[in-house]
Amino acid sequence: MTTATPSIKVGVVGGTGYTGVELLRLLAAHPLVRLAVITSRGDAGTPVANMFPNLRGRVDLAFTAPDPAALAACDVVFFATPNGIAMKEAGDLLGKGVKVIDLAADFRIKDVPEWEAWYGMPHASPALVAEAVYGLPEFNRDAIRGACLVANPGCYPTAVQLGFMPLLRAGVVDPASLIADCKSGVSGAGRKAEVHTLFAEAGDNFKAYAVPGHRHLPEIRQGLTGVAGAAVGLTFVPHLTPMIRGIHATLYARLTDRSADLQALFERTYAGEPFVDVMPAGSHPETRSLRGANTCRIAIHRPQGGDTVVVLSAIDNLVKGAAGQAIHNMNLMFGLPETTGIDGIALLP
Amino acid sequence: MTTATPSIKVGVVGGTGYTGVELLRLLAAHPLVRLAVITSRGDAGTPVANMFPNLRGRVDLAFTAPDPAALAACDVVFFATPNGIAMKEAGDLLGKGVKVIDLAADFRIKDVPEWEAWYGMPHASPALVAEAVYGLPEFNRDAIRGACLVANPGCYPTAVQLGFMPLLRAGVVDPASLIADCKSGVSGAGRKAEVHTLFAEAGDNFKAYAVPGHRHLPEIRQGLTGVAGAAVGLTFVPHLTPMIRGIHATLYARLTDRSADLQALFERTYAGEPFVDVMPAGSHPETRSLRGANTCRIAIHRPQGGDTVVVLSAIDNLVKGAAGQAIHNMNLMFGLPETTGIDGIALLP
Amino acid sequence: MTTATPSIKVGVVGGTGYTGVELLRLLAAHPLVRLAVITSRGDAGTPVANMFPNLRGRVDLAFTAPDPAALAACDVVFFATPNGIAMKEAGDLLGKGVKVIDLAADFRIKDVPEWEAWYGMPHASPALVAEAVYGLPEFNRDAIRGACLVANPGCYPTAVQLGFMPLLRAGVVDPASLIADCKSGVSGAGRKAEVHTLFAEAGDNFKAYAVPGHRHLPEIRQGLTGVAGAAVGLTFVPHLTPMIRGIHATLYARLTDRSADLQALFERTYAGEPFVDVMPAGSHPETRSLRGANTCRIAIHRPQGGDTVVVLSAIDNLVKGAAGQAIHNMNLMFGLPETTGIDGIALLP
Amino acid sequence: MTTATPSIKVGVVGGTGYTGVELLRLLAAHPLVRLAVITSRGDAGTPVANMFPNLRGRVDLAFTAPDPAALAACDVVFFATPNGIAMKEAGDLLGKGVKVIDLAADFRIKDVPEWEAWYGMPHASPALVAEAVYGLPEFNRDAIRGACLVANPGCYPTAVQLGFMPLLRAGVVDPASLIADCKSGVSGAGRKAEVHTLFAEAGDNFKAYAVPGHRHLPEIRQGLTGVAGAAVGLTFVPHLTPMIRGIHATLYARLTDRSADLQALFERTYAGEPFVDVMPAGSHPETRSLRGANTCRIAIHRPQGGDTVVVLSAIDNLVKGAAGQAIHNMNLMFGLPETTGIDGIALLP
Repeated sequence: MTTATPSIKVGVVGGTGYTGVELLRLLAAHPLVRLAVITSRGDAGTPVANMFPNLRGRVDLAFTAPDPAALAACDVVFFATPNGIAMKEAGDLLGKGVKVIDLAADFRIKDVPEWEAWYGMPHASPALVAEAVYGLPEFNRDAIRGACLVANPGCYPTAVQLGFMPLLRAGVVDPASLIADCKSGVSGAGRKAEVHTLFAEAGDNFKAYAVPGHRHLPEIRQGLTGVAGAAVGLTFVPHLTPMIRGIHATLYARLTDRSADLQALFERTYAGEPFVDVMPAGSHPETRSLRGANTCRIAIHRPQGGDTVVVLSAIDNLVKGAAGQAIHNMNLMFGLPETTGIDGIALLP
Repeated sequence: MTTATPSIKVGVVGGTGYTGVELLRLLAAHPLVRLAVITSRGDAGTPVANMFPNLRGRVDLAFTAPDPAALAACDVVFFATPNGIAMKEAGDLLGKGVKVIDLAADFRIKDVPEWEAWYGMPHASPALVAEAVYGLPEFNRDAIRGACLVANPGCYPTAVQLGFMPLLRAGVVDPASLIADCKSGVSGAGRKAEVHTLFAEAGDNFKAYAVPGHRHLPEIRQGLTGVAGAAVGLTFVPHLTPMIRGIHATLYARLTDRSADLQALFERTYAGEPFVDVMPAGSHPETRSLRGANTCRIAIHRPQGGDTVVVLSAIDNLVKGAAGQAIHNMNLMFGLPETTGIDGIALLP
Repeated sequence: MTTATPSIKVGVVGGTGYTGVELLRLLAAHPLVRLAVITSRGDAGTPVANMFPNLRGRVDLAFTAPDPAALAACDVVFFATPNGIAMKEAGDLLGKGVKVIDLAADFRIKDVPEWEAWYGMPHASPALVAEAVYGLPEFNRDAIRGACLVANPGCYPTAVQLGFMPLLRAGVVDPASLIADCKSGVSGAGRKAEVHTLFAEAGDNFKAYAVPGHRHLPEIRQGLTGVAGAAVGLTFVPHLTPMIRGIHATLYARLTDRSADLQALFERTYAGEPFVDVMPAGSHPETRSLRGANTCRIAIHRPQGGDTVVVLSAIDNLVKGAAGQAIHNMNLMFGLPETTGIDGIALLP
Repeated sequence: MTTATPSIKVGVVGGTGYTGVELLRLLAAHPLVRLAVITSRGDAGTPVANMFPNLRGRVDLAFTAPDPAALAACDVVFFATPNGIAMKEAGDLLGKGVKVIDLAADFRIKDVPEWEAWYGMPHASPALVAEAVYGLPEFNRDAIRGACLVANPGCYPTAVQLGFMPLLRAGVVDPASLIADCKSGVSGAGRKAEVHTLFAEAGDNFKAYAVPGHRHLPEIRQGLTGVAGAAVGLTFVPHLTPMIRGIHATLYARLTDRSADLQALFERTYAGEPFVDVMPAGSHPETRSLRGANTCRIAIHRPQGGDTVVVLSAIDNLVKGAAGQAIHNMNLMFGLPETTGIDGIALLP
């Protein structure tokens, strides 16, 4: 933290949403980062700390109108934008040697027609999709280290994949009948003025949504298929739960190898991982134990010793499910110690 | 509501918990009931409205020490007590011609050794277990009408059984691999001074609990087995969600008859039922749409047209999952119109 | 509830907000009301129960485009609209003999220029302002009985006036230095898509707002001045608190008559009032004890026996602070028993 | 953070409550602290991280039975105990050269009989009361630097004093008629199994409590009197609000000098203070902007330009109102940079 430390010059495109403010909170405290520019077409001129008062005295920048030159002068640019922006702007930056981390979905799905079907728009840069590296460090660390363009995983996909992948890679469950029953805090819906996420609508209430189909389904399926080496059948049901942050994925799979020691399998898989905490047998992770932290906490159960494996996987959707994982990816891309700037302890209570 | 209307003289044993206060709220407004006695060993002498200020001006009784004679003078006695009380006291009341409705678990499970294993105590009245009628009106209406002793279903079992039973009775799903992923509001844990249900513990938090085994599992399994006519394999995972009232059960089953019209099946099953609302195809019930109401709201999905049926079943755990259903049972036992006193509209927002 | 009962034909203009849905909940269960028409320009054609699923099976109407003839055929029309609508439409209805109850602010303030200054628009019907009766039944019952046009009080003004008026009418406090520190649940901000009332913004948060000036200030001041018979100095500070329903007003006044028996004064003032509950000395009303009920619960304190009187006044902002009080006014205007249809017991917990 | 850095050896007595876990979170990340011992009579043997899973992988200690020798080997001992413990144990530690910071109330009030009256027990160490330094750094920095025993302020007293003191010291308000209307999150009540702070009791609810008298009243009065140089008349009304963390104090005072520039007064008073943020005129601080941060955020208003000053003062009760301020005091006592270890940015949303 001396002045001699080389610092990474960072730009953020977007940054007025929850992923954005969380990215700013983490970047502002990152010892090897210099926050150079934050763009927002709609809020240009507004000091960042006026919109997000937790940043008063910590982030002095104002939002600026998008300025290609200012972004091109950065070492890395994070896109914390709606879907469909990064795919139009990443190419230029990459061409100028700027690394890009997209927190939206533009580069997550390799099958471009499938992406186009789920996201309802033509893809502007199919070639970049092929180049992009999926930024789930626990299963893609080496590729991320060498990447110029990282597709940061979605929040549900992070929790679900970290919970299912050890089982699928070891081949101890039936990949054809996976169920992911997921519960998200309301910040997952973003900082958009909408009726259904008002306090008086989402408070003291619980509901499933998008049961017929959710955009994170193909992303999860792609990741699980890659690890399973076989077609994966997945039922994915997201729910909205009246809390601000947190995702809890309750995962069900049919055991095909009853002799497998699942607890040992998970502990072995994640040994040495700084951001995955396999809890002792019999545990139940709580989302609040992760509030503000870049950790995924996992517990494995076989109720009544039967053939159904139940994996409980919890994260903070804005950190391990978005901004924290993005900085983890940045640390890898720039050869920094992996935990730099994202080792904060969760806030409990 | 004229003075000529014959009224039912009601006693309540217990009544200092959340099931109790909800029972009192509904009974106080029931046009054909006269609330005669409320007992509580620990709070004898305390006016009910001092403990529950919503009842100020509406319930003038004070809690009294348990008094067999006062209870024996009632037409019906509700037990809103911890498990293990009703099994000791119901017999005497029944012997004196008083009808009994137990909101605890004492008479819910027909297999007494199984009950004893899950509840950790010897059963005091195995003979009454055989006599007791399980009070799920939609599947047991006639038996309830003739019953003297009703075992009021648990909250999770109500939501889960109403969601699974149409499928099992019709034989269109595999009974061997059912999954019930259930989420409960915190009032389900009762009005007990415990750390884990403090606001600062359960607020802004989500977790599973009792994944290795929960007492409602054998109750649900018993009911489903009866309807399926076959052994049932059920994985039941309860979760605690930061809301006060409400249960949302997300139910998964493997379809064995792909030609079945599931929407029509549910609509047919519950046609004419006053307290089950089968929503239009594609719906997602919200617990808040049931807050304070004696309704179970159900939606049926087959994501991506696959073989996994997803049933969403939501109730207010204190009403349809406890006090409201108990009064429904009372209405049946006394030949009243079924909806009397339990037709309040849910409070939204 | 027999068919012979004369029923009041009711129209609702607006009705897509929280005041609207609460009005519909109460009207749908009112034994002497027939809900005839609900208009909404933006949602014409949508069944009411699609927007508000708690009304499924209870309200069969769909929203219709505003239709003067349909409204003119009603006995009474409620305006649950934004400010500035009723003042344009009430006159025609009144001219056709239809009674009007406005839940917005159009007719609350007698001083038209002051109204125009606070509400930022010219008033369309100054003459009707003079005719309108302020619908606070406890202090205006007789005038309401004879009224054709009732201005239903605001939520804050209801809680604050009921708490201060006994003191001012008795002349036992200094009217020049009143303080009303008020806390509102988020439903008070309405069902509008806005960022600041999102769950992730208003949840787990507390703040004051509009300290420089809030539109309810002149309304409260007008009412208090009328009772005090003197100019009133009032500091009014509203706060947003992370709950759905409820207002808690903490009122401070300087005692000028130290011999006054304040508890007796309040009990005497509200003796016989069906909807004001003066609690025993030393009490602290909770908003949840009023959830869904048309009651104002009040407690009076003199901390350390000093000269500062502290009055705690709590209501459900959507019931006693809006829809319930509106129906109370309707009952008075039509000569019905005052509590008809608004005697529901609060939902606790 | 090199091994050469001299580190402070820290002991914690208590530590199983919310103040304790917050202290542990901050100490575990403090670069100049070595956490040596945590005692708890009731939980001896339990790993700290079992009770507080956010500390998994970050705090390896287990709670130990109180052990005078282990504590005496520390440089500083924090008491995060119930009232009445530190006064019995601090003397021995001080005698052995260990510095002591008490987060409870034992040494806060200089008038011992007044302390005894409010806390309901005889004081065990009146002599230490005289020696103790009140740990409000903004007004007591020099004394804290030289102190061996610090009485860490209460949560309400921190928010209220920081808001009133500039006005009183400048003599611009009447000290005889101050009002502090305070709202606290539920964590302020501690991690004790009690009914009134259950989620289903405190959730979706708002109430005042202890209006006749609260223990923080004499503490606040003492501090304000010292600054005002005159007797202070204070009405203090605390409320419970359904959030986890945060205190919002709304403070009212009568202006005696209408020419005073209040905004400038506050800005001048707190210029250079690292943990007090005077917001621009017209602002409203939000408690969430302070979640997890050691900051007090203040705004000053004069509604309608009248004689009533309204100060809005907000803190995180567990940080600036407890653990963070305690570490600020430790930093001062050991000559460290004041912000070391307590410069985390608040978590928003």
